[in-house]
This record gives sequence, C-alpha cells and structure tokens, in this order.
Amino acid sequence: MKITKYTIQRLSKYQRIAKECCDNGTERISSKYISEKLGLSASQVRQDLNYFGTFGQQGYGYNVCALYDNLSNILGNNIRKNIIIIGAGNLGRAIAKYKYLSRYGFKIISIFDNKPDMIGVNIENIIVDDIQNLENFMKNNQVDICVLTASTKTISDIVNIVKNNGCKAFWNFVETPFKVPEGCIVENIHLMDSLQTLSFNNSNS
Amino acid sequence: MKITKYTIQRLSKYQRIAKECCDNGTERISSKYISEKLGLSASQVRQDLNYFGTFGQQGYGYNVCALYDNLSNILGNNIRKNIIIIGAGNLGRAIAKYKYLSRYGFKIISIFDNKPDMIGVNIENIIVDDIQNLENFMKNNQVDICVLTASTKTISDIVNIVKNNGCKAFWNFVETPFKVPEGCIVENIHLMDSLQTLSFNNSNS
Repeated sequence: MKITKYTIQRLSKYQRIAKECCDNGTERISSKYISEKLGLSASQVRQDLNYFGTFGQQGYGYNVCALYDNLSNILGNNIRKNIIIIGAGNLGRAIAKYKYLSRYGFKIISIFDNKPDMIGVNIENIIVDDIQNLENFMKNNQVDICVLTASTKTISDIVNIVKNNGCKAFWNFVETPFKVPEGCIVENIHLMDSLQTLSFNNSNS
Repeated sequence: MKITKYTIQRLSKYQRIAKECCDNGTERISSKYISEKLGLSASQVRQDLNYFGTFGQQGYGYNVCALYDNLSNILGNNIRKNIIIIGAGNLGRAIAKYKYLSRYGFKIISIFDNKPDMIGVNIENIIVDDIQNLENFMKNNQVDICVLTASTKTISDIVNIVKNNGCKAFWNFVETPFKVPEGCIVENIHLMDSLQTLSFNNSNS
C-alpha cells in the first residue's frame, strides 16, 4: 500500500473519532462504526489500520483509547512541532487560538507581521514580532512548520527566508499564488476555491 | 469533459490570477503564464477555459479583465449568495471578516451562537443571534450557504433545521463527524487533517 496524503487524512479522521469515543467513555468500536461515520467502506478502514499495525479483533472491534494512542504515535502527536505564523490578521489569530493545535503536539512559538499596529499585540501570550526579525528568529529557533496567512507582495521572500533557515513545511492560506522553492512541502487551504466550489455545485445541482 | 469539483477549483484559481493581473494593470496573459503560476499544464488551462467558452487567441493570450469577468460569470460571483455562520468563536469571526467573501458575491446575513457571552456581540455590523432563533430566521430569509464552525453536540440538529428550511449547502469547519442528511452538499475544510498531513509528510520525507 502506498501511503498517500489521503491515507494520512483518513488516519487523522479515525483518530478524531477514537478521541471522541474515548472521551465519551465508549470502550470499543468496530471498523463498521468508523466507516459509517466517515462514509468509507469498512474494508478501507481495516486496511488502513492493519497497514500501520493497529489491529482490531474480529467481532470485537478496536479498543478506542488504545486506537487513539496508536494513531497519535503514527501521526507523531507526541512529538512537539514548533510553528510560526506569518500574519497576525483575523485568520492568523484564529489559527493561533485554534484549540486543536496543542492536542496534536503543535506549538505556536512566534507570530510575525509587517503592520505597525499589529507588531507588539499579544495573541495567546505571544507578542507579535516585526517581520524584519524573521530571519534572526529562524537562525535561533527550530521551526518545523510555517503558516502563511498574510497575502503580501513579499510572500516569496518570506518563504525563501524560512526555507533557507531550515523549515521546509508550509501550511498555506494565502490566496495569491506564489512560487514554491524546490524541496518544500506545501499544504494549501484555499478558502475561496472551496467556497466557490460549494456555491457552484449548489447552483448547478 | 465532466465538470468535477477540481475543475471548479481550477477556475477559481484562474480567476484569482486574472484578478491579480487586472489589478496590476497587465493587459494579456498566456495559458503558459497561468499554468506556470499553478503548476498545471498549459493544455489543461486551455481545455478548462475553452470548455466554458472563454477563448484566448493563439500567440496573443487572454485579455485579463475579460477573462476575470467571464470567470466571475461562470462562477456566479455577480449573483448574491446569502450566508449564515453557526458559531461566533475565533474561526467564525475570521470567516465573517474574510475580505474575499464580498468580492465573490457572498454576503453574511447572520451569525448564531448558543453561548450567552457571544449572543449580542457585534461582528462586522452583525449582532450575533441566539441559536434558538435559527429556525425562525430560516423561515423568514433566503439562506444559500450555512457555514458550520462550532463543534457542538447538537450539530446534527442544526444541520437538519437548516436543511428543512431550504438551504442544502454547508461549508463545514467542524472537526467532529456528523451525519449529512440526504440531498445536502457539504464542502469540508478539515484544518487538523490538513496540518497533520503536512506534518507527517515533513517528518517522513
């Protein structure tokens, strides 16, 4: 089996269901239960989990808390990943305050902006830093993931500074396309593409 | 050609590039220019645009402002779509304030929450309404799209109220899976699936 982006997204969904059941006090769940929650086939669920060595028992299912722990290990949630956010606007703030980040091992260590009225603002106990200090910060800290929320003309420069200082993973919310340097991994959240797709399908269904 | 979700997402991207070029004062762009910006083949771009009757001239390219207008028509940006947001938390606020919505014809007409400290708050000149008033609101207003940002135990009830009162399109940010009623269209933005995928690929590359 090839581990694709979609496999990992499914694991993340299984984990979320396991967490929910674990919190609710449910002891065991079947692959059928998981598959129905997600609109997948039960064999897909079993295949994914088997591949990663997470075995249920036939007619008995998965122990939800063990399943959650297993998936958390596979997904590396027990390893802290340092994140910086470029852009302290509404989207940057919402991400900084997103309650799920810490649950999955993600830690925001700095937020940068170029606007004078943003620099110095306190967001979740992080003081927004001047984008001019980005390079220096990168040289002195281990950054695993850079979140891009601000659409500026210098986005390519920012990406290059980050990449040249050891972080090659970008979580991108910026609508304007930019050139991705070789060797970088970009995961895009294009809000308007998503909303326009929904709206088009809604009007044409 | 079958119009898939991916076709529409591409049109949305072409439109964004056309808008950018139009704003920058560029007159014409080639399919090659668009394709390089997006990492697609030029023939893919031509095929998509030809299909919708948007023709460039060989060796001459597309008039950017006409291209933008054409794409806006295809995507229905000139038609107002009324949106309600469920959840006035950080994510709901960020969406309400998202500057691209109005450009594409989307209009937030109400925001609902169930928390007493949220109800009555002013977000972009909209007073957050009590979720108890949702059904009544739906009966008296045309709602095209419902944005789900709040993860509550009653999310299925909310979805049913919205659906039973004429809106079948949901833009979903809620992490917890819920049952989608028949006939509804759901476009999911699963932030943690996306971030976990990025993080996994980054750790395993």
